[in-house]
Amino acid sequence: MIAGNLLPSWRPGASRDALLDFLDAARSVPRADRVAYFDNDGTLWCERPAYVQLEFFLSALRRRVADDPSTGERDEFTALLSGDRKRVGDFGLTRIALALADLFEGFAPEAFATEVRAFMATATHATLGRPMSATRYQPMLELIGELRRRDFTVGIVTGGGTEFVRAVSGDLYGVPPELVVGTLIAYDFGRDSSGRPGLRRTGRVLGGANEGPVKVTNIQTQLGRRPILAAGNSGGDREMLEWAVATDRPALALLVEHDDAEREFAYAGEAATLTESEPVTATAARAGWTVVSMAGDWETVFPRR
Amino acid sequence: MIAGNLLPSWRPGASRDALLDFLDAARSVPRADRVAYFDNDGTLWCERPAYVQLEFFLSALRRRVADDPSTGERDEFTALLSGDRKRVGDFGLTRIALALADLFEGFAPEAFATEVRAFMATATHATLGRPMSATRYQPMLELIGELRRRDFTVGIVTGGGTEFVRAVSGDLYGVPPELVVGTLIAYDFGRDSSGRPGLRRTGRVLGGANEGPVKVTNIQTQLGRRPILAAGNSGGDREMLEWAVATDRPALALLVEHDDAEREFAYAGEAATLTESEPVTATAARAGWTVVSMAGDWETVFPRR
Repeated sequence: MIAGNLLPSWRPGASRDALLDFLDAARSVPRADRVAYFDNDGTLWCERPAYVQLEFFLSALRRRVADDPSTGERDEFTALLSGDRKRVGDFGLTRIALALADLFEGFAPEAFATEVRAFMATATHATLGRPMSATRYQPMLELIGELRRRDFTVGIVTGGGTEFVRAVSGDLYGVPPELVVGTLIAYDFGRDSSGRPGLRRTGRVLGGANEGPVKVTNIQTQLGRRPILAAGNSGGDREMLEWAVATDRPALALLVEHDDAEREFAYAGEAATLTESEPVTATAARAGWTVVSMAGDWETVFPRR
Repeated sequence: MIAGNLLPSWRPGASRDALLDFLDAARSVPRADRVAYFDNDGTLWCERPAYVQLEFFLSALRRRVADDPSTGERDEFTALLSGDRKRVGDFGLTRIALALADLFEGFAPEAFATEVRAFMATATHATLGRPMSATRYQPMLELIGELRRRDFTVGIVTGGGTEFVRAVSGDLYGVPPELVVGTLIAYDFGRDSSGRPGLRRTGRVLGGANEGPVKVTNIQTQLGRRPILAAGNSGGDREMLEWAVATDRPALALLVEHDDAEREFAYAGEAATLTESEPVTATAARAGWTVVSMAGDWETVFPRR
């Protein structure tokens, strides 16, 4: 295998070398242990100026309000719809997210997935001038492909809503629903008037937001295998990356640094939901993780369309 | 494809015809929807005279007591070790299971899996005179193989402990850990004295026993796809089977009937943990499920060794 043919969107340098070394070393790992998990927002696709999932919920909210203006009278929604960042910030992401989740209370899982897919089919990024689906990172798609060619199991471990990501993970990344772990909304089991069983979404979050140490416990309970490659971009990914490399096996922790204001965005990668004592970039430096500079390491950021 | 070559351990008859019809009809189902889930105990392998998992825990308990007799002084354990069925029955399976789970409190997930695999490597069935691993049902192995050849995703949805089944599901059925959903023990995330993160088993059950309607909600939250084939053998599988066939797509509900005292066991299939208003065989008859008679439909019950 000629290294020059692998990962063509990754520029020569320390990050690409670390990936190639890891891929070589992983040949010695039993196939059952070749497991790689990726954070989604900011790691596999663009999360600025807003999470794609937030755009989806906002679009749903606007349609609801157009049908029934009283829907918009909830405090969190008037703040969101007015675009008043200060008021939205005062509510906090958790309360805003729970209010938005209520828009789909009572939905069957299939109906929710249909709405997500309809949104993704037409949604365009606010500033990049591309379809939302084309804000995936081309170098990460190449890495996922290369891992699969080497018999890795590839999953997504996201702070976002599990069912939102599952609705698109097959099309975007070839990842089946059972390999997506995120923040979960509980379902109620019930029967219709003819006794047919079915599930309905509730407004309850199961087990808290999938961030920080919760990513690690959820990986074990829902997926059952510890990764030897973990990739993230924020403080919410810290424990997952630490756990992946706390092993004697070949293992790699990848941290994506958003330092490319020209082609994407430049910002520090902290999880909005956590108060962190140490910037995750400092953890990365201390622990010797592979820090991926979008500006420096990626020849191409987004797929050709 | 010559039907005679398919499912060789299934005798000609209504059950085999229903399977072959379903396999044909599933060709029209998109691959992403070709999903089949199997209960484990009594559906994929023998559950009598005791659940294999119970034998594992008993074996662990006996070793602990040999090392430290005081371990056996707990009321549930004295009952179990004395073989007093009445007292064990009075405690109930849930309390007994929770007491046994405590034996592994503080274990890392990998250490628990190692103990399960060590047990399975040597355990022998109490009356059948075969290794535990050879009490799998040959006709079900053939069905799983045939489903995979048709691009089905095959998972296990068990009332048993998730991590117990995950430790053996690859070897026994080729099912990876993320496709096993069972009764879950919670983990605590922590760090050792050098700061390395890790997980430890607790004594807490997450979300209740995976039986009845909980199987359905857990399938949605942990696996994210509704099956078009569901197989079970007890009242604990009722809702999963009902849900699988409450669809306009080709779908099949399989109920294994243990009516073969000569080759296996003969007993009515009720979940020990549930109080049921209707025998599951009556639900099957009313709903038109495919009832598999072990005595009548299976030419071979267990694999040749």
